[in-house]
Amino acid sequence: MQTWTVTLLEMHVEEISKSINLLRRGAAELLIESELAEKLKTGRPLRVKAGFDPTAPDLHLGHTVLLNKMRHFQELGHHVMFLIGDFTGMIGDPSGKNATRPPLTREQVLANAATYREQVFKILDPNKTEILFNSAWMNTLGADGLIRLAAQQTVARMLERDDFAKRYANEQPISIHEFLYPLCQGYDSVMMKADIELGGTDQRFNLLMGRELQKHYGMEPQCVLMMPLLEGLDGINKMSKSLGNYIGVAESPQEIFGKTMSVSDTLMWRYYELLSFRSTNEIAALKAEIEAGRNPRDAKVMLAQEFVARFHSPKAAEEALLDFDARFRKHELPHDIPEVRIAAGSGLPLFKVIQEAGLTASTSEASRMIEQGAVKLNGNRVEDRAQLLHANNRVILQVGKRKFAAVILE
Amino acid sequence: MQTWTVTLLEMHVEEISKSINLLRRGAAELLIESELAEKLKTGRPLRVKAGFDPTAPDLHLGHTVLLNKMRHFQELGHHVMFLIGDFTGMIGDPSGKNATRPPLTREQVLANAATYREQVFKILDPNKTEILFNSAWMNTLGADGLIRLAAQQTVARMLERDDFAKRYANEQPISIHEFLYPLCQGYDSVMMKADIELGGTDQRFNLLMGRELQKHYGMEPQCVLMMPLLEGLDGINKMSKSLGNYIGVAESPQEIFGKTMSVSDTLMWRYYELLSFRSTNEIAALKAEIEAGRNPRDAKVMLAQEFVARFHSPKAAEEALLDFDARFRKHELPHDIPEVRIAAGSGLPLFKVIQEAGLTASTSEASRMIEQGAVKLNGNRVEDRAQLLHANNRVILQVGKRKFAAVILE
Repeated sequence: MQTWTVTLLEMHVEEISKSINLLRRGAAELLIESELAEKLKTGRPLRVKAGFDPTAPDLHLGHTVLLNKMRHFQELGHHVMFLIGDFTGMIGDPSGKNATRPPLTREQVLANAATYREQVFKILDPNKTEILFNSAWMNTLGADGLIRLAAQQTVARMLERDDFAKRYANEQPISIHEFLYPLCQGYDSVMMKADIELGGTDQRFNLLMGRELQKHYGMEPQCVLMMPLLEGLDGINKMSKSLGNYIGVAESPQEIFGKTMSVSDTLMWRYYELLSFRSTNEIAALKAEIEAGRNPRDAKVMLAQEFVARFHSPKAAEEALLDFDARFRKHELPHDIPEVRIAAGSGLPLFKVIQEAGLTASTSEASRMIEQGAVKLNGNRVEDRAQLLHANNRVILQVGKRKFAAVILE
Repeated sequence: MQTWTVTLLEMHVEEISKSINLLRRGAAELLIESELAEKLKTGRPLRVKAGFDPTAPDLHLGHTVLLNKMRHFQELGHHVMFLIGDFTGMIGDPSGKNATRPPLTREQVLANAATYREQVFKILDPNKTEILFNSAWMNTLGADGLIRLAAQQTVARMLERDDFAKRYANEQPISIHEFLYPLCQGYDSVMMKADIELGGTDQRFNLLMGRELQKHYGMEPQCVLMMPLLEGLDGINKMSKSLGNYIGVAESPQEIFGKTMSVSDTLMWRYYELLSFRSTNEIAALKAEIEAGRNPRDAKVMLAQEFVARFHSPKAAEEALLDFDARFRKHELPHDIPEVRIAAGSGLPLFKVIQEAGLTASTSEASRMIEQGAVKLNGNRVEDRAQLLHANNRVILQVGKRKFAAVILE
């Protein structure tokens, strides 16, 4: 009897530890692991919250880091809540200082939500995902409710937030409504009865606000799982649309495949950890094979195919591979392409990039090669010699049959 | 034709200057006089705002400084708005740090409003007074409206407010909702289309917030007229119920009369300026008579009678005078009563006060005189020798027929 109980408990502990290992994969920080273990011990499905901005439904791989983590929770049988922050989105930035945040109409929010649905269900299980809008409770909170909420936090606590602290110290204006947004995000956690909230490391302060407000409302505080911000194709900067160093989930199979093939080997393993559905064991085995001499290009192809299969179809992934091989002529893409860093400034014309990368002796030779159709950019023949390449990007250039360079534009 | 126009304009200017003189009477600060002159020039009745706390309808003379100023506006034909800040009153202090500000129910607010009406219409003309509740617009503002409002001001601007600056510097907590209250007060000015707001000098920051928000909403900013905080009976501290140095407008004729008679001559003239309905010319004439040798007691009696007549009736004022004279035995209250300052600590027994004031040689003599019924406190015979007198007060003590002292308890 005694033995039987202990064995059951040990299995349970082992299972929890396994779950936590999966949930920690790629994560930057988990607060607080012991609390999460306690919540998992209860055996009930946890209520998992992740909030998304209603203004930018055009997702890239950077956004999917969080979605993949939500998927891990779903795999473990938990209840995943996809929160669209439409309340603040419909306010916009009322200080008028942020031109990129005009208020959205209800129609725009719903249209964005539809796009979200289409894109996120390529990763999440629609049957295990609840989509919520925070306007549902924020619209009925009232000015009085918001004042009560604001009474729960102090100005000094708010000014502890990194960016607020810096701006206050530098005498840059902080509008008072900016203090209210973290409170609204925390209140979402209260209303959603979240057991755990996921977010980027840049969301640390706001995620902790949820813990504090839940405590104030007499609830068990949520755990907080922070994911790192994904590096873009350049391997340095955060992936973002404005930097151009992104792979969009709605891009064509050819683009997704080609861009993935362009990343460095180091970044490839980072993407494996944060983005691949393969288990850590599978990835470790693959890594071992590469270290034993297998061409890393094979691992990159597998990752590129996984992305295309996920966002398009397995068939599209096969076709993208054939197309890529054809474009780079089968087996002609060597696996020891030299990497070159070039300062692109505000944009550098292609013929100049080719010369600076050492693929031709002069810019006039580069121009001639382009005219002759002997230059490929990420496997595609180029015609415009003056085409501008921008900073924060990584491209594979081919001149003639044998000259290759992986160019990092800085 | 030319001459006629100029004359009319000059009369107009003279009238405006007269108005401003009346409105400035006793005021601590007017922002901005030239703007007020412009508003007065239009000839339309100005919308005059004064806000009152819905929690404390038990008024004393300190509160009536503002009411008297509102009366001046009414005398000049302007539209006076008596705003009851019931919205925040019904929230109370949600941080729970202020036990004296529990939330009020709608019923309590209405009961308090009824008491206000009863008391303020002893000063204001009910036919020229509009009573407003700010819940009328604040309840429909919504959390989104409040966020938009909060976007109009910065944290740095808020921390300029004296008490916030001090608390922040001393690391004393400031709840975020405290930043929202000045914004709500400013928004009241927007909704009320106030041309001018009246308030105490301690309200400076909040009054200016009305100007700023009105500008933001594209309105002409309100002027701000600040009244000083009335000194209490001790002539030093602000009149307040908690200090006990007040004259309540609902007190009995005897109390109002007696307390008024107890103030120093200096304070009497201060009360004339801030509280009397007599014109500055009348007051100046009275002052001249006193300086020429008339007993200042006469001026004090006139003021005491004015107060009793205002808050009770002219008949009650006559009776209070007779009663006061009888209590102090006609003509026995000399006009050169010596003033003595005594540290009352946390309360000093009467027999000790009498001895310290030099009215008896010892405390035992003081006790004996009290037992013999030979001691009067503000004209009333006292029996309890151990009766405690508290700090921040001024009393007139009489021992036997000829010994008097005006005792300032500190």
